[in-house]
Amino acid sequence: MQRIKTAIIGASGYTGMELLRLLLTHPGVELVAATSRQEAGKPIASVFPRFQGAPAAQLPFIEPDPDAIAASGAQAAFLALPHGVAAEIARALLERGLRVIDLSADFRLRDPAVYQEFYGHPHPAPDLLGEAVYGLPEVRPQAIADARLVASPGCYPTSILLPLIPLLDQELIEPTTIVANSMSGVSGAGRKADLSLLFCECNESARAYGIPKHRHLSEIEQELSLAQGSPVTLTFIPHLIPVNSGIATTTTATLKPAVSADTVGQALEAAYGASSFVRLLGKGGCADTKHVTRTNFIDIGWHHDPRTNRVILTSAEDNLGKGAGGQAVQSFNLMFGLGLTDGLQNF
Amino acid sequence: MQRIKTAIIGASGYTGMELLRLLLTHPGVELVAATSRQEAGKPIASVFPRFQGAPAAQLPFIEPDPDAIAASGAQAAFLALPHGVAAEIARALLERGLRVIDLSADFRLRDPAVYQEFYGHPHPAPDLLGEAVYGLPEVRPQAIADARLVASPGCYPTSILLPLIPLLDQELIEPTTIVANSMSGVSGAGRKADLSLLFCECNESARAYGIPKHRHLSEIEQELSLAQGSPVTLTFIPHLIPVNSGIATTTTATLKPAVSADTVGQALEAAYGASSFVRLLGKGGCADTKHVTRTNFIDIGWHHDPRTNRVILTSAEDNLGKGAGGQAVQSFNLMFGLGLTDGLQNF
Amino acid sequence: MQRIKTAIIGASGYTGMELLRLLLTHPGVELVAATSRQEAGKPIASVFPRFQGAPAAQLPFIEPDPDAIAASGAQAAFLALPHGVAAEIARALLERGLRVIDLSADFRLRDPAVYQEFYGHPHPAPDLLGEAVYGLPEVRPQAIADARLVASPGCYPTSILLPLIPLLDQELIEPTTIVANSMSGVSGAGRKADLSLLFCECNESARAYGIPKHRHLSEIEQELSLAQGSPVTLTFIPHLIPVNSGIATTTTATLKPAVSADTVGQALEAAYGASSFVRLLGKGGCADTKHVTRTNFIDIGWHHDPRTNRVILTSAEDNLGKGAGGQAVQSFNLMFGLGLTDGLQNF
Amino acid sequence: MQRIKTAIIGASGYTGMELLRLLLTHPGVELVAATSRQEAGKPIASVFPRFQGAPAAQLPFIEPDPDAIAASGAQAAFLALPHGVAAEIARALLERGLRVIDLSADFRLRDPAVYQEFYGHPHPAPDLLGEAVYGLPEVRPQAIADARLVASPGCYPTSILLPLIPLLDQELIEPTTIVANSMSGVSGAGRKADLSLLFCECNESARAYGIPKHRHLSEIEQELSLAQGSPVTLTFIPHLIPVNSGIATTTTATLKPAVSADTVGQALEAAYGASSFVRLLGKGGCADTKHVTRTNFIDIGWHHDPRTNRVILTSAEDNLGKGAGGQAVQSFNLMFGLGLTDGLQNF
Repeated sequence: MQRIKTAIIGASGYTGMELLRLLLTHPGVELVAATSRQEAGKPIASVFPRFQGAPAAQLPFIEPDPDAIAASGAQAAFLALPHGVAAEIARALLERGLRVIDLSADFRLRDPAVYQEFYGHPHPAPDLLGEAVYGLPEVRPQAIADARLVASPGCYPTSILLPLIPLLDQELIEPTTIVANSMSGVSGAGRKADLSLLFCECNESARAYGIPKHRHLSEIEQELSLAQGSPVTLTFIPHLIPVNSGIATTTTATLKPAVSADTVGQALEAAYGASSFVRLLGKGGCADTKHVTRTNFIDIGWHHDPRTNRVILTSAEDNLGKGAGGQAVQSFNLMFGLGLTDGLQNF
Repeated sequence: MQRIKTAIIGASGYTGMELLRLLLTHPGVELVAATSRQEAGKPIASVFPRFQGAPAAQLPFIEPDPDAIAASGAQAAFLALPHGVAAEIARALLERGLRVIDLSADFRLRDPAVYQEFYGHPHPAPDLLGEAVYGLPEVRPQAIADARLVASPGCYPTSILLPLIPLLDQELIEPTTIVANSMSGVSGAGRKADLSLLFCECNESARAYGIPKHRHLSEIEQELSLAQGSPVTLTFIPHLIPVNSGIATTTTATLKPAVSADTVGQALEAAYGASSFVRLLGKGGCADTKHVTRTNFIDIGWHHDPRTNRVILTSAEDNLGKGAGGQAVQSFNLMFGLGLTDGLQNF
Repeated sequence: MQRIKTAIIGASGYTGMELLRLLLTHPGVELVAATSRQEAGKPIASVFPRFQGAPAAQLPFIEPDPDAIAASGAQAAFLALPHGVAAEIARALLERGLRVIDLSADFRLRDPAVYQEFYGHPHPAPDLLGEAVYGLPEVRPQAIADARLVASPGCYPTSILLPLIPLLDQELIEPTTIVANSMSGVSGAGRKADLSLLFCECNESARAYGIPKHRHLSEIEQELSLAQGSPVTLTFIPHLIPVNSGIATTTTATLKPAVSADTVGQALEAAYGASSFVRLLGKGGCADTKHVTRTNFIDIGWHHDPRTNRVILTSAEDNLGKGAGGQAVQSFNLMFGLGLTDGLQNF
Repeated sequence: MQRIKTAIIGASGYTGMELLRLLLTHPGVELVAATSRQEAGKPIASVFPRFQGAPAAQLPFIEPDPDAIAASGAQAAFLALPHGVAAEIARALLERGLRVIDLSADFRLRDPAVYQEFYGHPHPAPDLLGEAVYGLPEVRPQAIADARLVASPGCYPTSILLPLIPLLDQELIEPTTIVANSMSGVSGAGRKADLSLLFCECNESARAYGIPKHRHLSEIEQELSLAQGSPVTLTFIPHLIPVNSGIATTTTATLKPAVSADTVGQALEAAYGASSFVRLLGKGGCADTKHVTRTNFIDIGWHHDPRTNRVILTSAEDNLGKGAGGQAVQSFNLMFGLGLTDGLQNF
């Protein structure tokens, strides 16, 4: 089999590191370029000693120059760049014939006005929004398979959207009652020298942040509204906890009157029973991040509280896995006709 | 000053250890007895090497025999026993003239039927419920000061009740809309040999549990209903995270129509502005457990989301401190006319 | 390719869990049996939810009955059992024609008297010691390839032996001056309900234990003596630190007079320059466990202190990987003529 | 009692934070100034929310201006500054009549040539070295009591010196055979925005660093040589482990011929049996950091290995406590005639 020549743009952060981890051993991938402004010139393995021993680990990081990336022969590029920066290079790579999986927020929102509201500056490439596909493979596999430009979802949104979409789609819950609380590992905050991310500031600490309008709310509400067929507004509270990776999300919502609790399980089963990466824990199951770290799985359990008629959804994923790199590779597999679980079969 | 002769019953768990830590150096306390069935005969310092060097640390643990405890001259006893076991010894000590601060659930609920519903067996001493005082010192200091028997609140309830009571009392929020998500350190699960509490099972893990009807819901709803003046039912989801101690709680509720968000801050300020142990972080403040561990403080911050009209309350306490031992000592100080912050002035 | 039918005996501990993780996705393996007295009857995935989604994860654990294991068609068995228990089942499986990789201590020592000295009871199967091969694949690959019974080394010994053997072999260091200090993750202590292994007892703690005569000393000294050609006695101090897995070992020894420090690097390079799993960090390199966790790599760096003429060797491995399951699979690959890195290519 | 007016210079790092924690509640101290270039103008409690509620926590940080510090009325100053910076301000404060406890390395070495060798630049104030006292209170209490300038020892040195000094003093061990391995919490590396100190870079990691000539070696060798009466050179290997604070040190050395192992315990007992802060665990005891964190204790245990005739010393302290702030306060208590344990009675 011909392996797909692939580039990672912005490969020196934690998402980039996870993409390297997955793509260095992906049977359908030949890694031909990895970029990092800061580390340009250094072999991948010297920046990430973990990868020493993988053949492509001797590849040196290069500057993120579109011509150089194209010259590497890359057919696909994963972008692990800050929002606002990704759009420009995405355009340049698309123009050079590459297919792009962007892990930033730049192409996740259909409406540039919402982008401006949540990100505080005008959208850098509004003309590309029309073709960008929000890359939830469980929700729109065919659109992803056909896409030239995939906007891979954020870590929090994935953990909130997958449990909720079937329930909204089936009109089981009151859309005004949704409250999502998420706990994230520290890698979600990025690999940057910042006092608040020091070991001693995060260890033995738990704290909410980004209230009440975290940027990820915008894409969550966009996708929930699509499922519901009308605008959905919710409350989302992210928290930082002392684990390297993993997101545990607990979402509550009130069942609509006359809806039986059992339909929750049925809707989840109908949506994900055949899925390769969504593992349903059933009624009474509680998702635990330790079972999903370093995988592309998302585990979903649910409960019903008859006293309040609320459904309680727990989900767990790796914020770098199903919440970032893993999901992006899952889209990549669809885009290039590879096996669904190729390169993602680790436990 | 005459120091109060004090006993700790059930002193070999984590709550008992925290009581030892506080009482061994409390200037108004003479520790005269500490009991532990398992460790009877061993000096405190041999079970808890941390306390080596404190004078009373050479005191040997004794069996929990009421006559022996009374013979020690104890005027006060802290009970750190499992629910169902505490009631019997509480009665025996009350009969022998001691004043009792019980940290178990046995005397927290006014209605024995609710006890039976949540704890699964008949209440062991329903006749004592009438005089027991639910020991939230910020809510009913005088009743605590006068009490012979104080039922010290649970760790989760304290973190949920203190932010909410002023808002219900002032009728600012819709009582049917309350959702509380808590993250607790592992010490909250007790010091017991259990596979699920091993380091490797908790580290790098975050998980919900006890859904939808954790036992602490019963006392939370009792106290919220008292504040509201009518029955309150809420959703409460506890989570276990890899820290030794600390609880971070995020509570959401919808503001009543025509209530201004600013009244939330005013109600909290009116209730706790003069408090020694409630620290208000104001609007936009997010409580972080790392600032309260090993103290008796509870930090409370709040936000308002105008898009959903929900108020978001974040609180942080040490589950062993304000959530258990510290709060019990705070009640003890009230009961014996000591300074409010005696023995609790650590940072 | 015909996959090797394989059984894991004692698969419900942490070593068993790692073997499951590796063998469930090993391209040359068909897992046909996994035993656990405690969990017999339950599917693997119900005990270890992490493995849900792997085809063989629905296999139920069975009792460790040799006939049943043989009836599964297994050609190879990995034993992850306590010492003293492994020997008996090893014999039964050998008699039934299986090849055995034993991860216990039962067959690591050539001299049953040394076994009795360090393990406190007579050796359970002295007649099998003659054919057992101490399974350090970097040291005796051919003997392992030919073996019917491999004794896979302990986690601490691997991290001490691999750096030292070439230096003793080349007569570079004074054998009486060796001191090894190791820091191990908590999984090394096993998956058992024990107060001292609780999260709150291990987190924020670092402690030595097992001084001065940890059981692993026996196999370390045996193998060092073989390399040296005469008896070697050393000091070994294990420590427990709050990580899930990983061993970092620092070993010091005095260079022989007139030996140039550079020969240390040359000896390591000669021994391991072509190795698939030993990564040499060179002079000045310091091994870090975070680069080897969940892999079969061992990283080795070295320094020379001219002031004391000591060489300082740092090594890092995953105690469950190269220190247990990974190394056992490495031997298995040799025994069955598979590719050296089959099933071990994860980062 | 008149409280001593006290200043902390450089109070925004972790050592400064620990000094604040101790001095804000020290019964013999009135905190009159705290300096921080970065945080000047902000109240202490806004930088360290943990201290909210302590009276002096509203004190604003000021610039480290000697005149302003003197104008605060301060009689004593603790310096928690980087080496090379402390000397200048120490001189200025001494000139203004304050007594100085310097926690940097600037005055620890008697020989400016050794300072230059280990710190890479000429000593900034060689004329003050004559009067500076290396502040190990267990070793030279009277000199500390009389001193105008105390050089408080480093964290690693304290954990190595206290166990060894009595053994060298009594000529029990071969001074050429000493090897010390230390494991330190991450706070020891300081509160600075540095990639290598991020949570995700330290968590699940153990690594040696600073080999073979860590700066602390210089003061360790100075003090050991004083105890021995002749120059001592040793090997010291520091390691970073994922705990907030705490140092565990394991030191090995060969007993001199004809010395009985029991004399080790006798020498430790003679030196520290009456000490307030050295807790002897006896033969067979293993020190554990979790029993000393947030205290001024150092725990010391020892073993003898008859096979190698090595003595193995384990010690544990809090790197910020006995290893920094606590020990400095212990010296301060001596200097100002306060009770030995004043302000240090926490468990």
